[in-house]
This record gives sequence, C-alpha cells and structure tokens, in this order.
Amino acid sequence: MPKKNAFYAQSGGVTAVINASACGVIEACRRHKSRIGKLYAGRNGILGALDEDMIDTSHESARAIAALRHTPGGAFGSARFKLKSLEQNKAEYERLIEVFRAHDIGYFFYNGGGDSADTCLKVSQIGRAMGYPLTAIHVPKTVDNDLPITDTCPGFGSVAKYIAVSTREAALDVASMAKTSTKVFILEVMGRHAGWIAAAGGLAGEKPGDAPHIILFPEIPFDKPAFLARVQSCVKDYGYCVVVVSEGVRNPDGKFLADAGTTDAFGHAQLGGVATVVATMVRDELKLKYHYAIADYLQRSARHIASKVDVDQAYAVGRAAVDLALKGDNSVMPTIVRKSDRPYRWTIGKAPLAKVANQEKMMPRRFISPDGFRITAAARRYLEPLVQGEAYPPFRRGLPDYVELAKVAVPKKLPPRQK
Amino acid sequence: MPKKNAFYAQSGGVTAVINASACGVIEACRRHKSRIGKLYAGRNGILGALDEDMIDTSHESARAIAALRHTPGGAFGSARFKLKSLEQNKAEYERLIEVFRAHDIGYFFYNGGGDSADTCLKVSQIGRAMGYPLTAIHVPKTVDNDLPITDTCPGFGSVAKYIAVSTREAALDVASMAKTSTKVFILEVMGRHAGWIAAAGGLAGEKPGDAPHIILFPEIPFDKPAFLARVQSCVKDYGYCVVVVSEGVRNPDGKFLADAGTTDAFGHAQLGGVATVVATMVRDELKLKYHYAIADYLQRSARHIASKVDVDQAYAVGRAAVDLALKGDNSVMPTIVRKSDRPYRWTIGKAPLAKVANQEKMMPRRFISPDGFRITAAARRYLEPLVQGEAYPPFRRGLPDYVELAKVAVPKKLPPRQK
Repeated sequence: MPKKNAFYAQSGGVTAVINASACGVIEACRRHKSRIGKLYAGRNGILGALDEDMIDTSHESARAIAALRHTPGGAFGSARFKLKSLEQNKAEYERLIEVFRAHDIGYFFYNGGGDSADTCLKVSQIGRAMGYPLTAIHVPKTVDNDLPITDTCPGFGSVAKYIAVSTREAALDVASMAKTSTKVFILEVMGRHAGWIAAAGGLAGEKPGDAPHIILFPEIPFDKPAFLARVQSCVKDYGYCVVVVSEGVRNPDGKFLADAGTTDAFGHAQLGGVATVVATMVRDELKLKYHYAIADYLQRSARHIASKVDVDQAYAVGRAAVDLALKGDNSVMPTIVRKSDRPYRWTIGKAPLAKVANQEKMMPRRFISPDGFRITAAARRYLEPLVQGEAYPPFRRGLPDYVELAKVAVPKKLPPRQK
Repeated sequence: MPKKNAFYAQSGGVTAVINASACGVIEACRRHKSRIGKLYAGRNGILGALDEDMIDTSHESARAIAALRHTPGGAFGSARFKLKSLEQNKAEYERLIEVFRAHDIGYFFYNGGGDSADTCLKVSQIGRAMGYPLTAIHVPKTVDNDLPITDTCPGFGSVAKYIAVSTREAALDVASMAKTSTKVFILEVMGRHAGWIAAAGGLAGEKPGDAPHIILFPEIPFDKPAFLARVQSCVKDYGYCVVVVSEGVRNPDGKFLADAGTTDAFGHAQLGGVATVVATMVRDELKLKYHYAIADYLQRSARHIASKVDVDQAYAVGRAAVDLALKGDNSVMPTIVRKSDRPYRWTIGKAPLAKVANQEKMMPRRFISPDGFRITAAARRYLEPLVQGEAYPPFRRGLPDYVELAKVAVPKKLPPRQK
C-alpha cells in the first residue's frame, strides 16, 4: 500500500487510560513515517470525521504525546454517537469515506467499546463497497469490561483499582466510627449491565469479616429481605456494614432499583442513584445511621491511582493497532491474551471485528458467591492481576500535571456536512 | 513528675492522617521510657476511658506503629461523644479521673477538633479540682480546618488534595464528552460550616476557563438565578460547567439547600445531598444533561493521595504533644506556624486550650471572589502549600497495605461505669 494518512478517534465514555492508547497509536505511527503520513485525530470522536473537524497530531511535541500516557479523559474529545446500520445511516457512512478520501486517509483507528467496534467494521465494509479500501482497526476501551475475546478491556483495571482502594479506605473510616456514628456505608459504582466494577470492590477484603460485606450485582435480582437481613447481621457481627452497589441492580421484575418509583415533591422521578434507594431502606427498615458515596466520573477519571497493568495494556493495544495495520490486518481488534494468573503474564493477540461487534461479555455466575453477595476465589483470581502496580502521574504544585494538547486543526477541503 | 502512664484517644470524624498523629505520639512516648511508662489508647475514643476499655500499645511492634503513618481511619476507634459542661456531665468527668487514677495515667493526649479541645481542657481542670493532677495536651485534627491559631489542621490538607485532584480529573472527563453528553458536573464535598474544603476544589483550575467554574460556599447565601445564569454562560463559553458544592450551602433564609423541602414519594425528607438539589435545578431550569458525584467518606479516608505536608504535620503535632508534656506544658495544643508561603515553611508552636476550645475559624471573605463563585489569589496562596507532596502508602497485591493493630486490652481494675 502506498503511503497514506491515518485517522484516530475516541468513542464513548472516556477512561483514565484511553489517552495511553492514543499515545500508543501516535508513537507507533511516528515510528513508521515511511508508510504512514500524517495522523489526524477526530475532534470529539467520529463527529470530527463527519464534520471534517480534525486535529493534526504532527504539531504536538513528543513530550506532549508522551504525557498522554498519564493524562485521563479524552485528549481529542470523545462522542456518544452511534452509527446505526448501513441502511439507516448510509449518508453518514458515505460522508466518512468522502472525508477520508479528501484527506488521503488509508488507516482508521477507532478507540472504543462494542458499538465502536461495530462502526469500525461497517466503515471498512462501506469503504470497500465504495471503491475506497481502508484499513480499519478497533482499539479496545471500556470501563464496563464487556468486550468479548480479550482478557480485559483497557480502562477497566484502573476503575477496578480505584473502587477497591476506595472501598478499603472508606471501610477503615466507618469501622473506626461505628460505635457512635455511621453503621452502614454504601458506595455506588458504575456498571449498568454487568457487575465487573462492583466485583472489583470485593478485592478490598481479604479475610472473613473484611469489608465490603455486601456487593449488589446487576446479575443478581435484588432480594430486599435477604439484603436487609444481611446488613443487620453484619452490624451485629462486625459493628458495621459496607455495601458496594452497582448502578445496574434490578428488582426481580427487571426494573432498575434506582427507578424504584420514588419521586420528589414535584412528582419528578427521583434523581438520586441507587445508593439513595438502598440508604432509604436501611434507614426506614433498620433505623441504622448510614452514609453513602457516589463515585460517578471520579472512578473512571482517577488517573492518579490507575493500575499500571491497565496503563501498560492501554498503551500496548494502541501500538499493536498500528502494527497490525502495517502487517496487512484489517477489520480486527488487538486483544489482551492472559498467559497466567500469578504472576500475571499477558500478550497481545487479535480478533476479527465480526466476532467482537455487538457481543457483550457478561460476568460468569461462578464469579459470584452462591448467596449472591460476594465474589468468589475465581473472581479474585481473574480480577487481582488487573489492578497490579501503580503508575503515578507527575505532580506540579501539589496536583497531577496533566497535558493539554495544542490541537491544531487540519484545514478543511470539503463543504460542510448536510445534516 | 514521677514516671506515669499515658492515655491517647481519637475523637470525632477520622481522617486520612489521624493515625500519623497517633504514630507521632506513640513513637515519642517510646523514646521517653524513663519518664512515660505505658501508653494506653482508648478503644473508640474517650469511651475507652469511660468504660475502662483500653488498648495497651506496648504490644504493637515498632513496624506496626510506623505503619500507622500511612494508614487512614482511626486505628483505635474514634467516637462522636461530646462531654458537655462540668455541671451537666460531672459523673463522666469524675469517672475519667477515676480510670486514670486506677491506671496511674498522668498524661492525657486527646486527638480531635474543637469539641475535644474543650473536653481536654475540662478534664485537666477537674483533675486538678479532684486532687489528681494531669498533663492534658490536645492534638489537633479536623478535615474542617476550623481550629483557631494553628495555620491549618492535620487532616485538612489531604482532603484538600483529594478534592482538588478529583475535580481536575473529573473535569477532563466531562470536557472531553461535553459535545454529545454531560454538560454539567457537580461534585459535592464536606464542610457544613465553612467552605475550606470547597475552596480546595478551586486549586484544580489554574487559568481562566479552567474547571471548577463555580464553587458554592456555605459562606455565600445561595443565589439561584445567579447560579443558573453562571452555569448557562459556562456551557456557552466552554462547552461544559464543573460545579463544586459544599454540603453546607444555605439559602438566603439560612436553611441548608440540601433540606430544600423536597420529599420522596413516601413523604420522607429527601435523602439526597445538596448535589441532588443542584442537579435538579440544572435539569428543570436549564434542561442540561448533568452528572454528580458525592465524595462523602472517600474524601477524608483517601490516604492513597494524601498530602505529604499534611502527613508530616500530623506526625509532628503528635510528637510535639509528648515533647510539650515532658517540658511541663499543660492544657495546650501544638500548633502549626506558617513561616512563608513559597516555599512553604512551617514550624510547631503552641496555644493554650482556653484560647482554642469552642472557637471556629471561618474562611475569610477575602478568600472568595466578589461574585461569590471562585477562590481568590489570597486563598490560593494559603491553600496551595497544604497540598504539596505525595506520601504514597506501600502497596501489596495491587492495594494499599494498611495495618491492622493487635489491640491487646488493658486488664480492667474497676467496676463497670454506671450509665
């Protein structure tokens, strides 16, 4: 293939390490200047391609690009924008190819989760159909850890570490105050469909009696009497109870617990998350003093406590995407292949996008204890390697020194997109 | 004074570094074995003295005691238990002296905030009145940063760092997603009476336009139209808006915003904190997509991102408390004295408890911008030194390796307390 430019975009919810993948892609492209010309990044993800609003990464210094490895968020902007089927969104797909053609882009690196794997595959297909061959490589990223085939998804390990660390720390606080103050502490974590993140909270405890005493998984229908009985018995046995609750917990009828019909004084559906609902039960039924924390975006942006394994993997899949493209692979995603648990050994493999797109990897039932409230030894064996190692960012004036890129725009060549 | 035993207790809400003060007290006592016999710690704070439920710290290894320096929470248990006036709680004060006498305790080190400074003073007074002279030293601690005279309160610097780091990280997340997703992010922080912690969030931003764009302080009556107008203009100018809100924000009528009269479907006062109330306004009045995080206990237990200055100061006041006692000081508190801002230089001073007890140091108005939404350069000059340096705990299997003490009980000598 003659020398072509490349396009990189970030997709969906950002993570503490998605920029480490960007760093891997950019540094790898820079090492192959004889085969890859310019690397353009989409401003705000795929919208940057649709709107021909691209950033010329060649203006960024080597130092700035290296700093992406320790900077959370999406340095070029990401987007929640799903391209649907070729029939439904034909104009958008064609516009993408038109923009790629105008800027001589032969490589498409798309950094996201399941939806973006699907988009990546479709873009490659429409390119071929339109006589514009394109090498499309998907770079895995999602805190939800729900991509198939790969051992884990870059972004997850760092959320897992943040949640496990926070659970352990808050538990020490609660344990020391429980005699006269808060007896039940509830930490709400992300994960609408699968309990991977909630399960990570389980790493905080190592021996019987350690917090968290209860994990509420989306996979296990919420059993209110069993939950309240367990809270009660923990407070009796240990003096306190720490609960990690996934935002995706559902009632037996399938409805999210967070949408449990409570409305505020104005009749609006209550905004509080599931932590509020659970706290209300603890207050009303058990009359116990509670506190709750909602980690929200803090958990997926906490680069200061990122997992080193996660940072390394995020970088590695970025670099591997470029290597695969240059080796002639197309419509694939680099994967993480686990070689052993302890010590954790992994390598990079690859998977065809047709097998990745629109597949959700759920957490196996054997990772959850029979009573539904804890993780098993098997879960621990899987999760523990993913939170290994620290990869602290540099600090300046007491705070992490995160990079802000210059983001020089690529001159436009086309008329604006028809919306 | 002949050789006497000592008693140490933790009081009130714990912090990421209160154990560093315990470490300072214990290590200093161990260095002075010719003058101080055993050091007993109260299990669950002052309750441990009242109930004669004490821990003999001499059974803890030097290694375990050193590890207190990097372990959050209250290693011996703390208590929210306020002894009132000598008249109202005479029996409790007398019981304390009775327990101290039974165990030959001549030194009382009390580690807490304003209330415990008051208790410490009263215990010393009643001891004298009962013919049992006691050296009572208060060791400062409070995330609220509201003790007078001292430059800052151990515990505050680490919360400040956590909130500043978290604000900066979450802001990068929101900025990169704002084009198609969340436009307003709200972080709720502690500080019911004073805005010190909220102000620390302001350190996240360094230049105009940086997050946080709005800080809601307890000191500034909440002006809803002004707030909403500011959110709107931030979203227009920057594409997003980050708000740090103190749990103590009040309406012009003096009521907490968090108690703004919203109730759930069952007529209960709504549990959600102030973040929920603010989020509701953003949704209902501006129709903007929002997210919110409630840091709650995570902020005051986050030893993994503690300020090194704070850890050093917490240790120093613990050690100084023992030094002051051995020099013959009584009813005093070691203080932190600022010598210069940049570089931050500080030393240890002392203040009489009579001047510390029941005094709240509020944040000066000149630390808040005229519009009430930001911190000033003066605030930054004060706050920035307090978050300097990292003091990472050791990690084991991917998580902070926090110590759990043996906590060997001191044999009881007295009949149970009459309650």
